[in-house]
Amino acid sequence: MNESTSAALRTALAYYEAWTGHDFDRAMTFIADDIVCDAPAGQIVGAEAFRAFMGPFSQLVTASSIIAALGDDETALLMYDTATRPVPNAPGAEHLTVVDGAITHITIIFDRQPFTEARQRAGS
Amino acid sequence: MNESTSAALRTALAYYEAWTGHDFDRAMTFIADDIVCDAPAGQIVGAEAFRAFMGPFSQLVTASSIIAALGDDETALLMYDTATRPVPNAPGAEHLTVVDGAITHITIIFDRQPFTEARQRAGS
Repeated sequence: MNESTSAALRTALAYYEAWTGHDFDRAMTFIADDIVCDAPAGQIVGAEAFRAFMGPFSQLVTASSIIAALGDDETALLMYDTATRPVPNAPGAEHLTVVDGAITHITIIFDRQPFTEARQRAGS
Repeated sequence: MNESTSAALRTALAYYEAWTGHDFDRAMTFIADDIVCDAPAGQIVGAEAFRAFMGPFSQLVTASSIIAALGDDETALLMYDTATRPVPNAPGAEHLTVVDGAITHITIIFDRQPFTEARQRAGS
């Protein structure tokens, strides 16, 4: 299904636009209280833990663009590129499950290695 | 669109089944000679370079499963989990462009960090 017919994709894109646009409070309005997020470093459970994970990252983003976005009734699959302050080319992919307009599960894939290398270069 | 209506997704899944099933020669039959692959470590151009990149990785895979797979006429978007010998949980995402039944472009996202850590543990 395309964007016009997938409610899940509309919610996923609204969330994406908010977090990449530095409006993380708005982004959180799309996140279920009991969200489960499978991220490269492990599983994150609950909206507050999710905010602590994604909020700081969103502040590093200087530009972003969608590579692909597809959805069906309950899920959406996004791939995007971001430019961030530590890493100029940091693409990511997300599989999102949407229930009653709220994102209840996200699997997020990105390459942690350049972020680790940037921290090491910064000596932190 | 779903699997039954997306020719690009059918090709992408046939490629996925072949490379995760250790039939890399069959996998290569879906790859265009002039494929361009954007991977975490950089861009790979041409079928032989692509084989040198993905072939060895495919040999490390011990199990795999599709997390999500969606497509439209010319592109497909896959997210999958793999178990590999060095890294037990190595999910990936691919955005594939298919022209006349051949995959001409792949953007692949995965986390290199656990593979680097496994190599460091192995002392290589």
